[in-house]
Amino acid sequence: MDELEIDVVAEVELDDPVLVEGLPGVGHVGTLAVEHLLEELEGESTLVRRIYSREFPPQVSVEDGVSELTCAELYAVDVPEGRDLLLLTGDHQAQSNEGHYTLTDAFLDIAEEFGATDVYALGGVPTGELIDEYAVVGAVSDESMLEALEDAGVEFREDEPAGGIVGVSGLLLGLGERRGFEAACLMGETSGYLVDPKSARAVLEVLEDVLGFDLEYESLDERADEMEEVIGKIQEMEQQQQMDVPTDDDLRYIG
Amino acid sequence: MDELEIDVVAEVELDDPVLVEGLPGVGHVGTLAVEHLLEELEGESTLVRRIYSREFPPQVSVEDGVSELTCAELYAVDVPEGRDLLLLTGDHQAQSNEGHYTLTDAFLDIAEEFGATDVYALGGVPTGELIDEYAVVGAVSDESMLEALEDAGVEFREDEPAGGIVGVSGLLLGLGERRGFEAACLMGETSGYLVDPKSARAVLEVLEDVLGFDLEYESLDERADEMEEVIGKIQEMEQQQQMDVPTDDDLRYIG
Amino acid sequence: MDELEIDVVAEVELDDPVLVEGLPGVGHVGTLAVEHLLEELEGESTLVRRIYSREFPPQVSVEDGVSELTCAELYAVDVPEGRDLLLLTGDHQAQSNEGHYTLTDAFLDIAEEFGATDVYALGGVPTGELIDEYAVVGAVSDESMLEALEDAGVEFREDEPAGGIVGVSGLLLGLGERRGFEAACLMGETSGYLVDPKSARAVLEVLEDVLGFDLEYESLDERADEMEEVIGKIQEMEQQQQMDVPTDDDLRYIG
Amino acid sequence: MDELEIDVVAEVELDDPVLVEGLPGVGHVGTLAVEHLLEELEGESTLVRRIYSREFPPQVSVEDGVSELTCAELYAVDVPEGRDLLLLTGDHQAQSNEGHYTLTDAFLDIAEEFGATDVYALGGVPTGELIDEYAVVGAVSDESMLEALEDAGVEFREDEPAGGIVGVSGLLLGLGERRGFEAACLMGETSGYLVDPKSARAVLEVLEDVLGFDLEYESLDERADEMEEVIGKIQEMEQQQQMDVPTDDDLRYIG
Repeated sequence: MDELEIDVVAEVELDDPVLVEGLPGVGHVGTLAVEHLLEELEGESTLVRRIYSREFPPQVSVEDGVSELTCAELYAVDVPEGRDLLLLTGDHQAQSNEGHYTLTDAFLDIAEEFGATDVYALGGVPTGELIDEYAVVGAVSDESMLEALEDAGVEFREDEPAGGIVGVSGLLLGLGERRGFEAACLMGETSGYLVDPKSARAVLEVLEDVLGFDLEYESLDERADEMEEVIGKIQEMEQQQQMDVPTDDDLRYIG
Repeated sequence: MDELEIDVVAEVELDDPVLVEGLPGVGHVGTLAVEHLLEELEGESTLVRRIYSREFPPQVSVEDGVSELTCAELYAVDVPEGRDLLLLTGDHQAQSNEGHYTLTDAFLDIAEEFGATDVYALGGVPTGELIDEYAVVGAVSDESMLEALEDAGVEFREDEPAGGIVGVSGLLLGLGERRGFEAACLMGETSGYLVDPKSARAVLEVLEDVLGFDLEYESLDERADEMEEVIGKIQEMEQQQQMDVPTDDDLRYIG
Repeated sequence: MDELEIDVVAEVELDDPVLVEGLPGVGHVGTLAVEHLLEELEGESTLVRRIYSREFPPQVSVEDGVSELTCAELYAVDVPEGRDLLLLTGDHQAQSNEGHYTLTDAFLDIAEEFGATDVYALGGVPTGELIDEYAVVGAVSDESMLEALEDAGVEFREDEPAGGIVGVSGLLLGLGERRGFEAACLMGETSGYLVDPKSARAVLEVLEDVLGFDLEYESLDERADEMEEVIGKIQEMEQQQQMDVPTDDDLRYIG
Repeated sequence: MDELEIDVVAEVELDDPVLVEGLPGVGHVGTLAVEHLLEELEGESTLVRRIYSREFPPQVSVEDGVSELTCAELYAVDVPEGRDLLLLTGDHQAQSNEGHYTLTDAFLDIAEEFGATDVYALGGVPTGELIDEYAVVGAVSDESMLEALEDAGVEFREDEPAGGIVGVSGLLLGLGERRGFEAACLMGETSGYLVDPKSARAVLEVLEDVLGFDLEYESLDERADEMEEVIGKIQEMEQQQQMDVPTDDDLRYIG
């Protein structure tokens, strides 16, 4: 295995496509969003590239008994009513600091081959608690990009995200800017505790706005309902536990 | 020491051999299994290669005062009544993520030199508790391989192994598939707490079936009896401990 | 991204400049000191180099919604009344041991381009407790440098710093010496708990002495007052906590 | 800084010298032993090489205010009445697994330049408790070496050292054997809690025997007395602590 091995699975002509990245991260927001796009746009999507690398964890996933070596996958989507898309997805990020640089450069190389100059990195920003409203926080590689995204409802907050943006999402902006791309990161607020379909939906609604296509959300909403159920049960269990355990006060009255 | 140093210890002509890998892993199932094969087939086995690498831990083992640098060993086995074998064994795995890729490629290179196209990676899948029945869970690099292994009693379960297969065993399937090998991973169920001879036996019984040779199991069964004794003593000790320690209830009645 | 990418932002002629390093470390003393210098000497400062590297953490910082890829920055300062300066600052150190060597060599390469032969690495030495007096402890690459710094009030203590000097600051002395530089490390004593403006000031006062310029300290003193307030509040909270929690003595009298 | 930078400090003609390695390890036994040899044989010793490397920790040590970059040092010792020596010492080991391989190869390269074919790696083997008798446990790269060392009082034990020998000491045997050296590792038993001069002495007494020179031990014995004092105080403090803390029994009678 070389540092990078890129399998050309198919070739597709796209017109000024947008690279949309959804590798695993906080709340799996980016991954959920891109998977939902692939589901909704299945008819127009073609798997074009598989990216293998020594930078990925040395393992295979197993589905129905058949193994698959860790890789990232790139789908070309010929969208009738909106911008063409290059959807990047995968189960793992690079395993070393330098690996993130290597992989991000590879993703941008492929994006250039397809004539892309715009990038959206999708992810989540953790709030640390369960929330009801799902804002989308943003970051851009150049200030000329702020206005259009603000019009689409993205919030640019003064001290967020604290600690910046780490990993491929951050480097798509950092390296993208140096290589002539216009890159934005859209981060849906999420508790950070669970895989969050509501956060993914909030991010996708911004994309619909800026990229000009329409999506249905039935399957994501189903997953959101399942998540609400799970949260409800957890909260119930926590309340019960608090009733059973003797508190410090209880112990003070022994004897 | 280069990245890889492969010592040619001997040359042996084999006929369409099968690479069988038993490097250390869960319950040491793979290692036990391959060591048992070497014991049973001693007369037909020849050490052909020693593989040294900067990717192995920087240490020597010491036996009877004499040192041996960390390496993997490959034995060629000219099996009269069944498939010829290339048995791969060792005390250590690679110490870095990239190292696993490097070593697995080296093992497949050597397998190609000997004309092998089939691979069996042997290991264990942890159940987290002591068990009585020892199923063998499987994964294959191509779905055409499923039927023959199911006939031999291997179970292909929907969500197992959870988390996939990590390390050389997984990469023998992942990289093997890309290089034209047919690779299967056989994982004996095991508690994961102990070195497990019963699990090794379950895996070997599948190999007997698919590769056409017969094995005796006396020494493995002896080790299994020793293991049962140890388990019995641990369970006794745990029960005694539970009787001595005051419980929360006990403490409630002080004073 | 190569191992190193050095952007030439501007060219400035300097006369025998001194490289002054303020990357993040204990108490952020070095960073505070260099940032203060940049503030005070704003009129004479020009950003000349940005240093990007795979050795830096793979992330972007975000300010007012716009991303910036991790880098170190070098400013050329044409100081009218004192030695010319090359001020090195940044938000992060290298992420690996070898990375420190790579980056320090890069910084010394750039220093050589500008004709520098003197280096001051600025940092903090932790005392482990809050202090009132702020000594500056020193280390030099050659004993001929000791006297001048002692005259400027730097203390060279027999067993300090214990454990030596780690990271770029230490390597600027170690590699600097091998490459013909005269390098000194000035470490302001600091508790190590907080970002410490008083420690930064102590170090800057030594630099004023040896490099021949004058600085105002109003903004640093303001930050020092804010720090005193924070310390005061922490001490108050700790005292209150001690009154509420039953001590071991208290527990002895239950019943 | 390249991967390795070897400074030639002086050239000395030696006759079939023995490489003796004393880098830091368990109980600092090897380091103490080599430092004592340097002290005792000061008149006949010349510093010949300094070895710098990116594999060493990126730091400088500071002595009397002057910095020194991490390195290993090699001294040539022209011993009148015994085997000539190459003494290898330093404050740090390599910081990565691969680094150990790199450095050990470098040390063997230099040993070959000086015409050495014999190697003694000195270290400690931890017993986990304070001891009175100080045996020296051994390991050799070839069984032909066992007898002479057994005659010198070295013990070769069946299952020791458990876990083998890790780091440069182990690789001097492992890589040394592959490169035509005869290498032995002498490990003085030691508690593992302290720097142990008695263990160092036990190892040196074996070396005296096999290499044919005589040593005085006054300074090592002084350090041993200091160590005994420290141990005595620690044991006293432990006993006092046991008297002050209420035991579980005490707590049972409250009320």
